[in-house]
Amino acid sequence: MVKSRSTKTKKPAKKPAAKKAVSAGAKLKIALVGFGTVGRSVAKILCQDTNGPLLLTHICNRRIKKKKDASLPKHIRWTENFDDVLASDADVVVELIGGLQPAGDWVRKALRVGKSVVTANKLLISEAGPELLDLARKMGKRLEFGASVAGGIPAIIGIQEGLAGDRLYKIAGILNGTCNFILTKMEKDGTSFDAALKEAQALGYAEANPSADVDGLDARAKLVILIQAGLRLRVRSEQILCRSISSIAAVDFMYASSLDSTIRQISLAQKETNKTVRLAAAVQPALIPAASLMAHAQGSQNIVTATGEFGGKTMFSGYGAGGDPTAVAVISDLYAIARSTGASAEALPGTAEVPDSVSGDFTVPHYLRFIVRDRPGIVAALATILAKYDISIDALLQKPGFPHSALSFVMTLEACDSAVLNRALEEIGRLDFHVEPPLCLPIFLD
Amino acid sequence: MVKSRSTKTKKPAKKPAAKKAVSAGAKLKIALVGFGTVGRSVAKILCQDTNGPLLLTHICNRRIKKKKDASLPKHIRWTENFDDVLASDADVVVELIGGLQPAGDWVRKALRVGKSVVTANKLLISEAGPELLDLARKMGKRLEFGASVAGGIPAIIGIQEGLAGDRLYKIAGILNGTCNFILTKMEKDGTSFDAALKEAQALGYAEANPSADVDGLDARAKLVILIQAGLRLRVRSEQILCRSISSIAAVDFMYASSLDSTIRQISLAQKETNKTVRLAAAVQPALIPAASLMAHAQGSQNIVTATGEFGGKTMFSGYGAGGDPTAVAVISDLYAIARSTGASAEALPGTAEVPDSVSGDFTVPHYLRFIVRDRPGIVAALATILAKYDISIDALLQKPGFPHSALSFVMTLEACDSAVLNRALEEIGRLDFHVEPPLCLPIFLD
Repeated sequence: MVKSRSTKTKKPAKKPAAKKAVSAGAKLKIALVGFGTVGRSVAKILCQDTNGPLLLTHICNRRIKKKKDASLPKHIRWTENFDDVLASDADVVVELIGGLQPAGDWVRKALRVGKSVVTANKLLISEAGPELLDLARKMGKRLEFGASVAGGIPAIIGIQEGLAGDRLYKIAGILNGTCNFILTKMEKDGTSFDAALKEAQALGYAEANPSADVDGLDARAKLVILIQAGLRLRVRSEQILCRSISSIAAVDFMYASSLDSTIRQISLAQKETNKTVRLAAAVQPALIPAASLMAHAQGSQNIVTATGEFGGKTMFSGYGAGGDPTAVAVISDLYAIARSTGASAEALPGTAEVPDSVSGDFTVPHYLRFIVRDRPGIVAALATILAKYDISIDALLQKPGFPHSALSFVMTLEACDSAVLNRALEEIGRLDFHVEPPLCLPIFLD
Repeated sequence: MVKSRSTKTKKPAKKPAAKKAVSAGAKLKIALVGFGTVGRSVAKILCQDTNGPLLLTHICNRRIKKKKDASLPKHIRWTENFDDVLASDADVVVELIGGLQPAGDWVRKALRVGKSVVTANKLLISEAGPELLDLARKMGKRLEFGASVAGGIPAIIGIQEGLAGDRLYKIAGILNGTCNFILTKMEKDGTSFDAALKEAQALGYAEANPSADVDGLDARAKLVILIQAGLRLRVRSEQILCRSISSIAAVDFMYASSLDSTIRQISLAQKETNKTVRLAAAVQPALIPAASLMAHAQGSQNIVTATGEFGGKTMFSGYGAGGDPTAVAVISDLYAIARSTGASAEALPGTAEVPDSVSGDFTVPHYLRFIVRDRPGIVAALATILAKYDISIDALLQKPGFPHSALSFVMTLEACDSAVLNRALEEIGRLDFHVEPPLCLPIFLD
């Protein structure tokens, strides 16, 4: 910590014996932009530790009259105007307003006037991470975003620095706490997706418009950041397949349980380097073994696994969201800046390759669930089409008690390329006995 | 990476266009000291990546004629004499010989002549970590030891930097792969400790003298390092209670299973700050829930959890030993040095506090297993003593089929201070019906 004093203090204090001047000069001055749940946690924790190298000096938010927290120290300057932050003596801007705009412009402006930036903004980093890191590097400042993925779990530093010596080829995770809450709820209580979603909304875990969570967009932004950090590949969010968990029904958990499995929203990216660099990546509901570590993540917990050529599979898990855990990630980033000489921005190198191809196809076993008007010959019709595409059926499961008018049954398939299976499913979808479109889920065994 | 070139190259290359000079000047030159399993993995991985910032230049080991690996590049200089390494132009010494001496002297010498050091030596770091870090800092060099705990799992960087923003008060883990192999083997196959140990020895997982592993000394050294890194407390190994797993019998797994639990060697440290700073820490076999994440660690896997005031519990798991995973940790440390300006040694601050007290006492439920010559009044005698110490019995379990001459049964106790329980057990131990001394295990529920 002592080291950073000399680099942070523009001029040596005239009276080094004067206690106030020295300790103020030693501290990293922090402007908090966005005073919601995470912002409030960051402020609370920063103001509890007055001996450390971090000093909260500014808070910027709309309607500060309403937001102003009288319990925070008097020296903090409150403002509604981001220009005040830019003009201030703050060393670091903590951006917690989220979304692409104005957050993106503000982060760029802060870097351009010579401030380091810490952000929890997954959308912004997944969209513009490499560009912003280039800008930070050019300005001799730091951009840190440990809080943008998996909240309090140190997945980015763990993967990017802790596993720097490995050659990672696979990243998998449960990256969205809302989906995990909904799916573990459905699993435990046997409720429908709609009922579990409503409960998540009532508890504040899900938004009124839950699309970003349940359709996979939130997890996708995080996966893009992990792909850059761990696989060193640069992809755009829209290149990554997303499938909604909203098509999962209570009956799927019954069948999954018969298969000693459960269902989770899994974010998965796999890199294959041969002559070309190919990336397979998707965010989707999938069957995973009930005894697996992934299945262990309950409620809003997150989990990230990284698999490398040398170190095998390493796992990080913990609380992926919430004010305090996310604040821990933000403050850990602030400490990293305080420790550094302030001149580097090494995290997430801008030199990540662009893969030659990106697909959502994995060669894995699959789970197919049908709801049909029962009549003779249905299985034969399905088997004929699957055989045409060289896809082998592994097992056929049918729970008793369904009406003939909406009979549900499940086929599991041996490992096959999901692109080939999708073509078979298109053909299967045209058969006339479906009451609902068939549901197809990959089965991830490890 | 480019940044470090200017700081590493003492003089600018005279012909910057000459490819060889430039690329050689850009690299961090590495001397490997100790060419065993981990050393060979480090050499293999370093020599596969010729474009990176790391260049293996020296290998030092005894009997190099026998050890010399002809597949490694010709430019590597082999030596049996550590003084050659000290006199060389290597920037970093990777110490992989293990043990306190001569490793300690060599690390000190390397730092004193201005080389950074990477080590996997848990004994040395647990014994002399703060002193060596002070020396590194004084010399403007780095000392990194990510490989000293939990092999390939980035637990130290994850806890020390990734969770820097939290206030950690608890560290727990499965830190010894040999014990975990033996105990998971006993659990699965119902074998005795001796049989499982013999298998571990046959497979090369356990040493001929297994004491360091099974008696907890290996895990204790790692726990000391994690206590320093995460709880910021400075303790000596001998202050930490160790209990051997050799007293665990096959029957204990039977009883544990009836309690939906299993048995693992658990390293646990808990910090309590009130007016004084108290540390409770121990390495011992313990009952843990069969459904817990800890119980999930199979065979030689390791797991580390860190619990903080703000971020809750965060978990790291993966392969804690073996050549390649440990090499990943070593090489990740080398990358960290390559990225840095080489002037800081921030990890594991020497400023960690010395706790006011260190004990091995936890207030938790306990498992007591007795093997007795059966006769009336045994339970009454035990219950009377326990009641005297205000300890409540939770349940009494007795599997059928034991002979009267060596009847085994189990008591579980409600949460009580293990120091108080130990006094009760001393008294209980003096009763005359024991065939074997009673076994007491803590039950860790979370």
